Amino acid sequence: MNDQPAASGTPASGGVRIAVDAMGGDHGPAEIVPGALDHAGAHPEDQVLLIGLEAAIRAAAGTLPPNATIVPASQVIEMHEHPALALREKRDASILVASDLVRRGEADALITAGHTGAAMAAAILRIGRLPGVDRPALAVQMIRTGAPFVLLDIGANPDSTAENLAQYARMGAIFAERVLGIPEPRVALLSIGEEKGKGDLRIQRATELLDASGLRFVGNVEGKDVTGDLADVVVTDAVTGNVVLKFFEGLSTFIFDLFRDEFRRSLRGRLAYLLLRPGIARIRDVFDYEKAGGSPLLGVRGAVIITHGRAKRRMIAFGLGVAAETARTGVPALIEEALREDAARLDAAGAGAEGRAEETTLDPEDTP
Amino acid sequence: MNDQPAASGTPASGGVRIAVDAMGGDHGPAEIVPGALDHAGAHPEDQVLLIGLEAAIRAAAGTLPPNATIVPASQVIEMHEHPALALREKRDASILVASDLVRRGEADALITAGHTGAAMAAAILRIGRLPGVDRPALAVQMIRTGAPFVLLDIGANPDSTAENLAQYARMGAIFAERVLGIPEPRVALLSIGEEKGKGDLRIQRATELLDASGLRFVGNVEGKDVTGDLADVVVTDAVTGNVVLKFFEGLSTFIFDLFRDEFRRSLRGRLAYLLLRPGIARIRDVFDYEKAGGSPLLGVRGAVIITHGRAKRRMIAFGLGVAAETARTGVPALIEEALREDAARLDAAGAGAEGRAEETTLDPEDTP
Repeated sequence: MNDQPAASGTPASGGVRIAVDAMGGDHGPAEIVPGALDHAGAHPEDQVLLIGLEAAIRAAAGTLPPNATIVPASQVIEMHEHPALALREKRDASILVASDLVRRGEADALITAGHTGAAMAAAILRIGRLPGVDRPALAVQMIRTGAPFVLLDIGANPDSTAENLAQYARMGAIFAERVLGIPEPRVALLSIGEEKGKGDLRIQRATELLDASGLRFVGNVEGKDVTGDLADVVVTDAVTGNVVLKFFEGLSTFIFDLFRDEFRRSLRGRLAYLLLRPGIARIRDVFDYEKAGGSPLLGVRGAVIITHGRAKRRMIAFGLGVAAETARTGVPALIEEALREDAARLDAAGAGAEGRAEETTLDPEDTP
Repeated sequence: MNDQPAASGTPASGGVRIAVDAMGGDHGPAEIVPGALDHAGAHPEDQVLLIGLEAAIRAAAGTLPPNATIVPASQVIEMHEHPALALREKRDASILVASDLVRRGEADALITAGHTGAAMAAAILRIGRLPGVDRPALAVQMIRTGAPFVLLDIGANPDSTAENLAQYARMGAIFAERVLGIPEPRVALLSIGEEKGKGDLRIQRATELLDASGLRFVGNVEGKDVTGDLADVVVTDAVTGNVVLKFFEGLSTFIFDLFRDEFRRSLRGRLAYLLLRPGIARIRDVFDYEKAGGSPLLGVRGAVIITHGRAKRRMIAFGLGVAAETARTGVPALIEEALREDAARLDAAGAGAEGRAEETTLDPEDTP
């Protein structure tokens, strides 16, 4: 597994080469290609590689700018396919061709709006994990007033250990610092109760690891504080992370729909809407998740961004920006280095420090 | 552990006796007592037992109606105390005296707004678990348009097994059917992805158990569907459940605050507010979580409701209603019976059916 060149993980000076999976997602080349070319136009120092069915890309592109090229791939993995199976059967799938460009050091970053499971599998299997990474994690920039924060894992690894959570913290902190520009990001575990060590046994063990990590670990945040300003990196397992991310989507849509119904219900409502229009635009701006561009898959040998299947031109362009910044600032190499240091520190501290996690569950024998 | 009378678990004909922990919470007797007496006034068939410092209760109560009595308790567990320690040191704490009334069959239901950890501990240790219940679960009625749904566990048991989750489903379904009046409630697991079996190993194993349970199991719901109308009982572990519940609180407050700021920002905003006022009242009505009354602790030998520390008179009255209905419809006895049947069925099916949970995590060796 260690035969991949490290080229894609090292910081690039100036421009970077971005492999764009032009296929897949809800809109395919029609939105992905214009979005990618928007980035190419705004960043002439970057190279944009458009991967997929040549005719479809050419139709969506029109005349290509000098810093964009087409890399043909004859197959596409559809949303309903089983990831492992599809990757095995479709050897010329756009996501595999794109991953191989990164693997061979011919691209520094990758972005796809296609099948999330297939994209994670392709990146992990073809590009490979960084040395020391047990499980890559999918991170996401979450909206709140002011700067966004990073939540991870949101779905790469369904069964995380405490050690995985500690690695996510390290990887998320590097992304937050380098790509979002947050110096010394505050790291927290998502849990029940604010007190350090509250939560299940895994969280308690992760708390010990993070206390010893040298990261700026602030303890636990509760669900009610997620939209607050208590942490810049919020670490959790895939199930909770994914549920929170999608609940954000579901609940905010639910609330906005309630308001929309009221704005439409009567003349009073329509008048209120007209008066409030500038305010609604400001609120919409806070909830503009397209700006996040997509979710970085942290822990692989390259800057990999998996964007929303529903992403359109504007979000794709932001996604290329995040991909380029992740590669330009050398996030993968920094993760590799940080994990090497963590391992050395753990070795020095003696690998036998098991860490006793205290059971907070009620014990019926513990009769008052 | 089996020396408790089952009296409190059996359905009562007509009125029930509700033990009200009059102390604790943010407001103490000043809100709890009037709320309890509101219930007593509206339900002359019920008996309300007000437990706590007699002088404080009497001051808040004024003249007591014939169906309300004071049961003195000289101590109160404060919010910051360590539950197990406090229960051990304060033998005459109101929550312990209230629990003992249920234990001795002198009350059918219990409600408290005090220290949640101490309340759970008191109920589990003093009232005791129902036979066959491995871990009691704290459930909550979650808001959505139309009927609420039941989410559990939201914090009783930090390290749930798949077997625990299956029990939560059974207990939640009985509560939904009997107290919320939802016939044949739809049960779902909260997870990543809608397909049955998606999620971590625990969810996959719980899926097998629920498939065989005879419950109306509809598979997984994702975070985005929580506010939808896909399930009446949503089962998850304490960490995810607690995070979802509190995130609901945090995110809805965040969004409503954004609107409030816009309504206050300018003359246009204030005018829009005036016009939209009836609509805002309707939205507020949807988000009226006070109506839920409180969280039932399911799996103990009595109807135990733990309500919000911030609960005021109105929510307390609703809480007594939920407590009374839980006792009146015999939810504890029904849970006991259902779990006995489950155990018998499992025995009949052969206890050796281990259930193979498939690993969905990506295997790097599984190279395409």
